[in-house]
Amino acid sequence: MKPADRISRIAPFHVMAILARARAMQAAGRDIIHMEVGEPDFTSPAPIVAAGIQALHAGKTHYTAATGLPELRAAIAAFYQSRYGVAVDPARIVLTPGASGALQLVTALLANPGQNMLLADPGYPCNRHFLRLLAAEGKLVPAAAADGFQLTPALIDSAWDKSTIAALVASPANPTGAVLSAAQLSDLYAAVKAKQGTLIVDEIYHGLTYGLNAPTALTLGEDVFVINSFSKYFGMTGWRLGWVVAPQWAVPHLDVLAQNLFLAPPTPAQYAALAAFTPETLDILEARRAEFAKRRAVLLAGLNEIGFFVPCVPEGAFYVYADIAAFSHDSMDFCLRLLEDEGVAITPGIDFGEQNANRYVRFAYTTDVARIQEALLRIARFVQKGAAHAV
Amino acid sequence: MKPADRISRIAPFHVMAILARARAMQAAGRDIIHMEVGEPDFTSPAPIVAAGIQALHAGKTHYTAATGLPELRAAIAAFYQSRYGVAVDPARIVLTPGASGALQLVTALLANPGQNMLLADPGYPCNRHFLRLLAAEGKLVPAAAADGFQLTPALIDSAWDKSTIAALVASPANPTGAVLSAAQLSDLYAAVKAKQGTLIVDEIYHGLTYGLNAPTALTLGEDVFVINSFSKYFGMTGWRLGWVVAPQWAVPHLDVLAQNLFLAPPTPAQYAALAAFTPETLDILEARRAEFAKRRAVLLAGLNEIGFFVPCVPEGAFYVYADIAAFSHDSMDFCLRLLEDEGVAITPGIDFGEQNANRYVRFAYTTDVARIQEALLRIARFVQKGAAHAV
Repeated sequence: MKPADRISRIAPFHVMAILARARAMQAAGRDIIHMEVGEPDFTSPAPIVAAGIQALHAGKTHYTAATGLPELRAAIAAFYQSRYGVAVDPARIVLTPGASGALQLVTALLANPGQNMLLADPGYPCNRHFLRLLAAEGKLVPAAAADGFQLTPALIDSAWDKSTIAALVASPANPTGAVLSAAQLSDLYAAVKAKQGTLIVDEIYHGLTYGLNAPTALTLGEDVFVINSFSKYFGMTGWRLGWVVAPQWAVPHLDVLAQNLFLAPPTPAQYAALAAFTPETLDILEARRAEFAKRRAVLLAGLNEIGFFVPCVPEGAFYVYADIAAFSHDSMDFCLRLLEDEGVAITPGIDFGEQNANRYVRFAYTTDVARIQEALLRIARFVQKGAAHAV
Repeated sequence: MKPADRISRIAPFHVMAILARARAMQAAGRDIIHMEVGEPDFTSPAPIVAAGIQALHAGKTHYTAATGLPELRAAIAAFYQSRYGVAVDPARIVLTPGASGALQLVTALLANPGQNMLLADPGYPCNRHFLRLLAAEGKLVPAAAADGFQLTPALIDSAWDKSTIAALVASPANPTGAVLSAAQLSDLYAAVKAKQGTLIVDEIYHGLTYGLNAPTALTLGEDVFVINSFSKYFGMTGWRLGWVVAPQWAVPHLDVLAQNLFLAPPTPAQYAALAAFTPETLDILEARRAEFAKRRAVLLAGLNEIGFFVPCVPEGAFYVYADIAAFSHDSMDFCLRLLEDEGVAITPGIDFGEQNANRYVRFAYTTDVARIQEALLRIARFVQKGAAHAV
C-alpha cells in the first residue's frame, strides 16, 4: 500500500511542528507564549454559546438541508444589508462546514483537472491543496510587498495562461493582513472578466479590520464567489461553520456537491450562529475588535523597535508578516530557535508559499497585550544575543 | 462561467425531489409518512446532549487537533476492546467531520487520477462521487441478491483491472441492510490482498443489527481501513462526527489531509461524543436498537403480505430494499405516485446504482411502529387500486 501521488505534494503545515514542540515544552513546565495559531484566543461570545445550548436542549440534533438552515441563510443576507448596505438573495448563500468546506465546494465546482487558479504568494496554503485534490493547480503568483502582497491586474494579465480559470484573492489576507480597497477589488474583477475568468474572494477575516472597514466583493457583480466564515470575527472556530455567496446558477450544483461531500453543515453550529448578528453579540465582537487593535499597535511598534521590517502594514486579520532578513535566512530555523531559547511560538514564512518564504515569519496577536509585551522582551533578547544568526 | 465536467457526473440524490415534494405537500396540510430519510428519528441520547452542553458552558469552542481529541480517540479504542474484544491503538484512529469526511480522507489518500475502487451495486451513492472528485472512479460491480448484494471474492477477481487499487464494502450495507459474516470479510480480505489491493470497510451502521452482531473488519489485519460514525447507532447525525481506523503508516498523511481539508472535526460534537460509550448511553442505544427491531419485523411482514419481494432480508441498518417488479418498472415514478396518492415517502432504487435500479425501492423504518402500520395500509391500498401500474 502506498499513498496517492498527490500526498507528497500536499505539504504539512510547518507550524504544526512548532506547535507540537511548544506543547511538549509546556508539558515540561516551560512558559510558552503562543503567537503561532490562527485562532482568536476568545471563546465564542456568550449569546452564541447560549443559542447553541438552547438548540441542544430543544433536540436540534438532526441533519439540516445540505445548504443549511433557511433562517440562517436569511440572517446572513440581512447582515449584508445592515452592515454593508448590500442586498443579497438568501438563495445565493450556501452554509458549509467552515470556510474550508466553502473553498472545497467552489474549487470542485469550477476546476477541471489540469486547470489552474491564480493565488497570491504569500497566501493561505490550503487553497492550492484543495486544487491538487482535484488534479487541478493553484498557480502561485509572487506578489509585491508594495501591492500588499496582493494580486494586481498586471499580475493577472501576465500570469493568466490557457489553463487558468479563476483568481482567488483574500481581503483581509492571511498572512499579511492586507485589505483590498473597493477600487482594487473592482480592478481585479475587471482584469479577471477580461480573461473570461471567475473572481473568488475570501472574506473570512472581514470584521477584523482596524481604522477602516473592508469592502465586500459582493457589490462587484453576481458572478463573484465570496467566501466567509463564522470562525474569525464571530469567534466560532471549533464549531466549523462558513458560507459561500455564489451566482444563482451555481447554487443547485453546490447543493448537490454539498449533499455528496458533507451531507450538511453541523446543526448545533447553525443554531448557535443564529445569535451571531444580534446587537448584543455585535457589541461583544466590536469590543474584541478594539482589543485586537490595541494588540496590533503594541506588536507593530515593538517589532519595529527590535528591528523587524514589516513591509506591508496590516490593516486586518490578526497577523503581522515580518521580514527577518536582518536576523536569519531560514524562517523555520528562526522559529524553532526562538521557541527553544525564549518560549515564543510563531509561524515560519515557508507555510505561506515560496516567494522569499525563508525571509518572513508570521506573528499572530491572538494573545493579550501583557503577553505580547512579554513576548517582545523575549524576542528582543533573542535577536540581541545573536542567537538568530546561529545558522 | 460553467461548472467543471465532473459536475454533470455527480448525480443529485433523487430522494431530494421526493423530500422536497413531501415537504410541500405537508405545508399544504397533507399527512406525510416519512420513510425516505436515512436518519434515525430519535434525537441524540440525553447524556450525549448533556455532555455537549457541559462542554459549551466550559468554553470548549476552539479548534481541536486535526485528528481529534486524544481522549475521544482513546475512548473509541476502549469501545473496540469492550464491545468487540479487539485491541486498537488510539493513534490509528482519526476523527473526521462525519463518515463523509472519513470517506473523503481515505479516497484522497489512496486513489490517483484514473485509478478505481470496486463498489457493490447497489450501494451508497456518495462513494463514487468522492472518487470522481479526485478524477478517479468508483467501479460499480453488479452484486447478486443471493450474495446479499455484496461483493464476493469471485466478483473481486473478475472486476479487478489494472487501474483498481481497492475494494470498498459496507456492513451493514445501505440500501440493503446486508451484514457480512466474519468468514465473508476474511474471504474478501484475502481476495483483495491477492490483488495487492486495499480493503476499505464502511461500518457506519454497526450496532444496528438484529439477532446478530456485525463482526468488525479490524480483526483482519492492520492494513484494512475501517470507517465508522457517531451518526447512526449513536444517534448524532447533525453533529457531523465520524472516524477512520487506519494503518499506522497512513495516519500522518491523513493528519496532513485533514489539516488542509477540514482543519478539525467540530469541537462540540467531539466533547458530546465522549459520553457515547457510557453504560447510561449504551442502555438508551440498546433500547433504540430493540425498537428498530420491532419496526423491522412489522415492516418486513407487511411488505411481504402486500406482495413486495425482499430478496435480501436485512440484518442491519434501518432499511428494507424491496423489489417492486410486481407493481412498476420505474422506481422514481412509483415513489412519486405513492407520495402523491397516499402521502408515503420512500427512496427510489435509482439512487443506489445502476443494476436493476428501476426495480427496487428503499423503505427506511425511521418512524414508529404505528406510523409504519399506517404506511402499510396506505401502500396496500395504492398497489391494490393499480395506481402503481400507471406508467
